[in-house]
Amino acid sequence: MEDVYRYIEEHLPATLEELRRLVEQPSVSAQNVGIQETASLVVQMLREHGFETRLLNGHKGNFPVVYGELRGASPKTLLFYNHYDVQPPEPLELWTTPPFKLAAYDEYVRARGVSDNKGDIVARLAAIKAIKATRGELPVSIKFFIEGDEEVGSPHLEEFTREHGPLFQADACLWEGGEVNWGGQPVIQLGLKGIMCLDLDVETADRDAHSSMATVVPNAIWRLVWALSTLKDREENILVEGFYDSVAAPTAEETAALDAIPPEEDKLRESMGLKAFLQNLSGREFWRRHYLAPTINVCGIIGGYTGEGSKTVLPHLAKAKLDVRLVPNIEPEDIAAKIRRHLDRHGFSDVKLTLMEGEKAARTPMSSPWVRVMREAARDVYGLEPVVIPNMAGSGPMYCFTDILGLPVATSGVGYPECRMHAPDENIRLADFVKGTKMVAAVIDRFARS
Amino acid sequence: MEDVYRYIEEHLPATLEELRRLVEQPSVSAQNVGIQETASLVVQMLREHGFETRLLNGHKGNFPVVYGELRGASPKTLLFYNHYDVQPPEPLELWTTPPFKLAAYDEYVRARGVSDNKGDIVARLAAIKAIKATRGELPVSIKFFIEGDEEVGSPHLEEFTREHGPLFQADACLWEGGEVNWGGQPVIQLGLKGIMCLDLDVETADRDAHSSMATVVPNAIWRLVWALSTLKDREENILVEGFYDSVAAPTAEETAALDAIPPEEDKLRESMGLKAFLQNLSGREFWRRHYLAPTINVCGIIGGYTGEGSKTVLPHLAKAKLDVRLVPNIEPEDIAAKIRRHLDRHGFSDVKLTLMEGEKAARTPMSSPWVRVMREAARDVYGLEPVVIPNMAGSGPMYCFTDILGLPVATSGVGYPECRMHAPDENIRLADFVKGTKMVAAVIDRFARS
Repeated sequence: MEDVYRYIEEHLPATLEELRRLVEQPSVSAQNVGIQETASLVVQMLREHGFETRLLNGHKGNFPVVYGELRGASPKTLLFYNHYDVQPPEPLELWTTPPFKLAAYDEYVRARGVSDNKGDIVARLAAIKAIKATRGELPVSIKFFIEGDEEVGSPHLEEFTREHGPLFQADACLWEGGEVNWGGQPVIQLGLKGIMCLDLDVETADRDAHSSMATVVPNAIWRLVWALSTLKDREENILVEGFYDSVAAPTAEETAALDAIPPEEDKLRESMGLKAFLQNLSGREFWRRHYLAPTINVCGIIGGYTGEGSKTVLPHLAKAKLDVRLVPNIEPEDIAAKIRRHLDRHGFSDVKLTLMEGEKAARTPMSSPWVRVMREAARDVYGLEPVVIPNMAGSGPMYCFTDILGLPVATSGVGYPECRMHAPDENIRLADFVKGTKMVAAVIDRFARS
Repeated sequence: MEDVYRYIEEHLPATLEELRRLVEQPSVSAQNVGIQETASLVVQMLREHGFETRLLNGHKGNFPVVYGELRGASPKTLLFYNHYDVQPPEPLELWTTPPFKLAAYDEYVRARGVSDNKGDIVARLAAIKAIKATRGELPVSIKFFIEGDEEVGSPHLEEFTREHGPLFQADACLWEGGEVNWGGQPVIQLGLKGIMCLDLDVETADRDAHSSMATVVPNAIWRLVWALSTLKDREENILVEGFYDSVAAPTAEETAALDAIPPEEDKLRESMGLKAFLQNLSGREFWRRHYLAPTINVCGIIGGYTGEGSKTVLPHLAKAKLDVRLVPNIEPEDIAAKIRRHLDRHGFSDVKLTLMEGEKAARTPMSSPWVRVMREAARDVYGLEPVVIPNMAGSGPMYCFTDILGLPVATSGVGYPECRMHAPDENIRLADFVKGTKMVAAVIDRFARS
């Protein structure tokens, strides 16, 4: 593969121009900015790289999905999942340079989307171009699935995937968002948590009362505080009956994978500006908790008077917003029902629940042949053993690909721990960008030979 | 007293014109609207009724206090406590007629302040005028203490009272805010609860995190929810160690007074738009709780994302605002210290407390001769046994008068349960206004003979 890798290195300036073209086209799904223009640009870029393309309408008002296909020497097919939308750039004043201009330096580039995940799209196209230029054709077929709603939770992607399933038939799927760790090892992730977002509302009367009535009149905030305090205790145990019923214990392979994660907790903690993690977690238990445990998080709470000074009011309304991160075998609707039952049993039938959105967890077994391909490719490019993580802490629509399309899935990308995804000054290092591009080429090569 | 009472009835139209003059001058202390003009108007009205007056500067930026004195046949002196400020009229759209215009009907009048408490000021002046007109002079001396900061919590009134104590020397004090109950019985209240307002702040990191980190990163809202849940349980027991230590059990007289309160809980409940009171309280226990028990109320809570839809954030800041209603012998600073100690003992040293304001409780013993005077006067005017309540549920600066000036204090006024104090369409019934005026005359008469 040395010829391919050399081609990638030599053509870096042209690849960076392609990255500039893509990141300088804003595409903020949450604000409906530049979406159609970006979808058209991505179609055009795929065509320039020899892909047949289709622009598929999203479901129920979703943004279009870009489909691309490039036939190779073999009918074996890799599906590349990406998204062309990015997070909003705000707060703008915290950016060193304008978010939709590529700021290029000797060692890194900065712009919204360079890491998440326009950099991945461009790296994948550059790897394909390098193989075609040096070998004449791809050894396998490649398909692209590039959506425009990832940063707003990919609503309705399940229906979309069911409808268009045949178009996206493949043998394995390369996910977006991969990175190297602080020590430079490539990190390969094989799953995502599910998520369920829930609103809790309490209404105790038809109006607020004077707080002198607190002797005898129910307070919506107290009701909500007590209800929440029954969901999770201070030792981080989730108390909802049956919550852990279908949480599988880590397999021996998974435990071995956790043990192989280098001790970088302190670097992570420092990068977050934290004095300590919960319960001073570290080592295997830290990683087990982070990657494999479900959570109940309070995203927000509000009720009554919250301004300056004092107002002696007894509030009749209070609201909290939860997100619950799910591991495989826990369905969002099932957990919502369990929380409902739990609240009822504990005397909180007055707390109204609204299920805002749900996504299932996804996981590819560590024993999958696709994981072996990924490991081999990583060793080829990085010269280091990759860190293989059974499951990410975050969520996304991966289950559409594992469970509906039936594909093994693993991540690959161009990020690093300080790349500030979703934040001001998003950036990538050029060394990671080049290695990430070579990794895609190596994956294609190893997959063809597997 | 029939001559005095007849005079009051016959001169009602002139008295209502005086009420119009006072309520049509706005005086919103919270918004600093019309304060100086109203203080001057009150001075002028007192002078027209023969009072010597002084306009005393408030302490530390407080609004001026109107002092008035009218010597009578005896050096025995009654002090009338009132305030010339009113609550803000907002929300304006809920008023049937403009808040600062007196809307007069056959049976009632409506305007901001007619009940709380410009109606009381005018009724007191009308009673004094009736006695002077029919008897030539007052049988006792009368002093007025009319402040302009009552609706914003009377800050620094303690220092003011200490400084000007000699000026306000008297033998008893008539408080504002009295009313009749649903059954038409006059209600005489002998005390006020104290109050302490406290902010609770939690900060767990220097910025918010992505909610996928909830596995390992502390959440400020969870910390606050757990801390609050240790303060009070769902059976309304306050769990702060030592909180009840100095709460006196009701005396036999107080219990008898509670038992004499007519069963009007359901009317109160309906007027508040409530299905049930806490724990379905009723009867003696309802009134004991309402009038004699301390409370911890959450006035407000806020943290994280509280807008539409979902935002998967792990908040590093959360805040709650409490008000604690205090009974006699509980000092605001002492309770703040106990809550601090409680939180520390329960592992919540990270919850920061800020004492926003505090007022002590005040109570006049039921056995005071002044209470006998009030009872006799009430029987004279209403022909009914009054309801004597040891203590109101609300708070105010009464302790400056009981504890600093050393006076027995009782309420008298022109309100009724639906007079909408502090709310749109504040109103009083003319029948209550006339009886409330006669009550002031009867109090002066009975006091002179006591």
